[in-house]
Amino acid sequence: MVKNHGLAGIVVDETKISSTKNAHLIYVGYPIEEIAQASFEEVVFLLWYKHLPKQTELVAFRQDLVNKMVLPAETIRLLLYIAKEPQHPMSILRTTTSLLGTTNDVEHDEPPKILAKMLTAIAAIIRIRDNEPLMEIDPDLGVVENFLLMMTGKKPSKRLAKMFSTVMILHADHEFNASTFTARVAASTLTDYYSCLTAAVCALKGPLHGGANERVFEMLETIQQQQIDPLKYLQDQLKAKRKIMGFGHRIYKDGDPRARILKQIAAELVQTTDNQVYYQLQIKIADYMFARFNLHPNVDYYTALIYHCIGLEKETFTMIFAACRTVGWLAHIMEQRQEGSLIRPSSVYIGPTGRHYLRRVGDHNE
Amino acid sequence: MVKNHGLAGIVVDETKISSTKNAHLIYVGYPIEEIAQASFEEVVFLLWYKHLPKQTELVAFRQDLVNKMVLPAETIRLLLYIAKEPQHPMSILRTTTSLLGTTNDVEHDEPPKILAKMLTAIAAIIRIRDNEPLMEIDPDLGVVENFLLMMTGKKPSKRLAKMFSTVMILHADHEFNASTFTARVAASTLTDYYSCLTAAVCALKGPLHGGANERVFEMLETIQQQQIDPLKYLQDQLKAKRKIMGFGHRIYKDGDPRARILKQIAAELVQTTDNQVYYQLQIKIADYMFARFNLHPNVDYYTALIYHCIGLEKETFTMIFAACRTVGWLAHIMEQRQEGSLIRPSSVYIGPTGRHYLRRVGDHNE
Ligand SMILES: CC(C)(COP(=O)(O)OP(=O)(O)OC[C@H]1O[C@@H](n2cnc3c(N)ncnc32)[C@H](O)[C@@H]1OP(=O)(O)O)[C@@H](O)C(=O)NCCC(=O)NCCS
Ligand SMILES: CC(C)(COP(=O)(O)OP(=O)(O)OC[C@H]1O[C@@H](n2cnc3c(N)ncnc32)[C@H](O)[C@@H]1OP(=O)(O)O)[C@@H](O)C(=O)NCCC(=O)NCCS
Repeated sequence: MVKNHGLAGIVVDETKISSTKNAHLIYVGYPIEEIAQASFEEVVFLLWYKHLPKQTELVAFRQDLVNKMVLPAETIRLLLYIAKEPQHPMSILRTTTSLLGTTNDVEHDEPPKILAKMLTAIAAIIRIRDNEPLMEIDPDLGVVENFLLMMTGKKPSKRLAKMFSTVMILHADHEFNASTFTARVAASTLTDYYSCLTAAVCALKGPLHGGANERVFEMLETIQQQQIDPLKYLQDQLKAKRKIMGFGHRIYKDGDPRARILKQIAAELVQTTDNQVYYQLQIKIADYMFARFNLHPNVDYYTALIYHCIGLEKETFTMIFAACRTVGWLAHIMEQRQEGSLIRPSSVYIGPTGRHYLRRVGDHNE
Repeated sequence: MVKNHGLAGIVVDETKISSTKNAHLIYVGYPIEEIAQASFEEVVFLLWYKHLPKQTELVAFRQDLVNKMVLPAETIRLLLYIAKEPQHPMSILRTTTSLLGTTNDVEHDEPPKILAKMLTAIAAIIRIRDNEPLMEIDPDLGVVENFLLMMTGKKPSKRLAKMFSTVMILHADHEFNASTFTARVAASTLTDYYSCLTAAVCALKGPLHGGANERVFEMLETIQQQQIDPLKYLQDQLKAKRKIMGFGHRIYKDGDPRARILKQIAAELVQTTDNQVYYQLQIKIADYMFARFNLHPNVDYYTALIYHCIGLEKETFTMIFAACRTVGWLAHIMEQRQEGSLIRPSSVYIGPTGRHYLRRVGDHNE
């Protein structure tokens, strides 16, 4: 028995959902580069049911998801209460995800309902933080357009919706990443869906995982606003033994295939939103990190700039990651419940041994 | 690479907290049979700081914990709101744990404060469910007496407090069990304490883990109230491929050392509370499970009856498990943050391969 570095390379289980073998990301058999061009609803259907929907199935599935995006009045009342707390949106989302599973009649909620409620709740948290009125869904639009509408208050252009749909697909699943694995460990005790999802949100919040996208933009802002030389900034961070957010990956040592697609989307969006300066800065940082450490941008790096271009505050970036990854979390929870056994590993004890407890005189409890 | 049965026997990391090696449970070097006689606060101190406190340290530590058991008015206001929902107490606890980390000024909460708040919140959920007024702490009592006081509304006898303290110690930690491992996976992303704790509560809720104690009592009640022959009941369950709750363990194949101590406590408590009939039933079931399947009672089996004797409703049993295990969860979260790396395992993909996505005519998003 040896100590494993964070279970790197240790197989927990089989899966039919996605694969990162040989650093190629595939969703149920489709290369990410191709499936990123599908519609979001198609990919949700694929990850859950393991084949693409027929055209009629797709229309029905999309309509069903959109219809389910309406939250019960009771949930909205609680949300208005909770989301006003002056706390990080991911803490609010953690409470909210749990709450979605605590109000009436949720015992039998299935993945479509759960995903739809999560998207609406996340959009609502953003609106409440911004002191803006909550938006109603538009039944004539798809899931992505409705999600954007409810977050930003505006119906998105076809082009923006398409780009955002690709971003959501790229974030939808990623095999046994830390938050998905958290959800699977919870699911292995046969706890309910909302508990598994809440656990996943808890893990995604961490800066080594989903929390990185917020910190990427923080870095860009700091460098830009304080007019720091970016290379000096990086050197100072590395000297202080801090990781550079948005770089490195447990699996992709030669580059993250999602980052390549996201880079193109960021490049297009900065043109129309006048954010070229951030994009140029990102290119400069990426060049340095590659030349100096052979480290590549991961999924969070260009995504941060994309969300900024859409008008989102950086504190809300990780919630958007959660919105997309809910698709994959639900796929893995279903799979774990159907196929898996209790996930309960071992450890090696390296503390003291052979101690003995002597009852003390005057023990308070005696 | 092979598929591992729920990571059984796979070492994730080193630990200095507890060990189940050779089916002997030790806490930081002390055999469970001896340390179960210590005071609860001593064991908390031990699991967190890796040595027993000196007498003066113990007095100060106990007083500090008790003082911290007061919840902010704002939290109580939210609790009154949440705990009224007609949902399972573990769903309410999940939301509550998250909420404890969402109200003001929690960024710098340390384990003593977090444990104290959890105990008070759990007691409060029980009182609110019972439509009873919330109790105030008594600064002259220890943590266990205060916890009992706030749950039941009565100051416990010295003997009851001592027995309950032993129960709490026996539940305080158990190496890399499923909920603790969930907390550690979350902690490995460097997410905050409350997120890790919430994730642990999510996993504990499952019937294969902490949720078992409630189901043990459900079984006893069903058999007793419907006057079913217990052996027939077991045979029917097993025929339907249902596990018998409170039996079996990933680690202890020849019996759980905690169950032996808990059995003695249950035996004493049923005398004074006139619950002998349940105890006799438990012995009969245990004899059968051993003779027929070589399966032994686990930590949840006699605990269920102990909680019933104390006057708790079965739906709240798993919350009490959470109250005790919060000690161990916090020890593991601290250790993971200090020593660990990102927990991110692998999987084997067994789904379809080589698929290609062809853009469809009439795609809604184009
Ligand atoms: C994602 C991450 C946790 C992967 O961790 P891992 O698989 O355990 O990889 P390691 O930490 O072992 O990294 C290997 C080496 O590269 C270095 N490295 C990895 N990512 C780095 C980063 N972002 N900045 C600086 N150095 C980094 C490590 O320090 C290590 O160097 P060493 O061998 O000299 O100690 C890690 O790359 C990281 O923390 N990245 C920043 C956070 C982030 O962007 N997360 C989002 C992931 S989608
Ligand atoms: C705790 C538990 C999940 C351990 O699981 P595990 O290490 O994966 O053990 P397995 O499920 O492989 O059990 C080994 C064998 O004993 C059987 N078994 C284990 N626990 C059983 C139980 N409680 N009732 C009936 N059969 C049981 C299994 O069916 C299996 O039989 P098989 O080899 O014929 O398939 C399991 O014993 C269980 O579900 N117990 C009931 C729930 C419970 O009390 N949980 C609280 C644990 S503290």
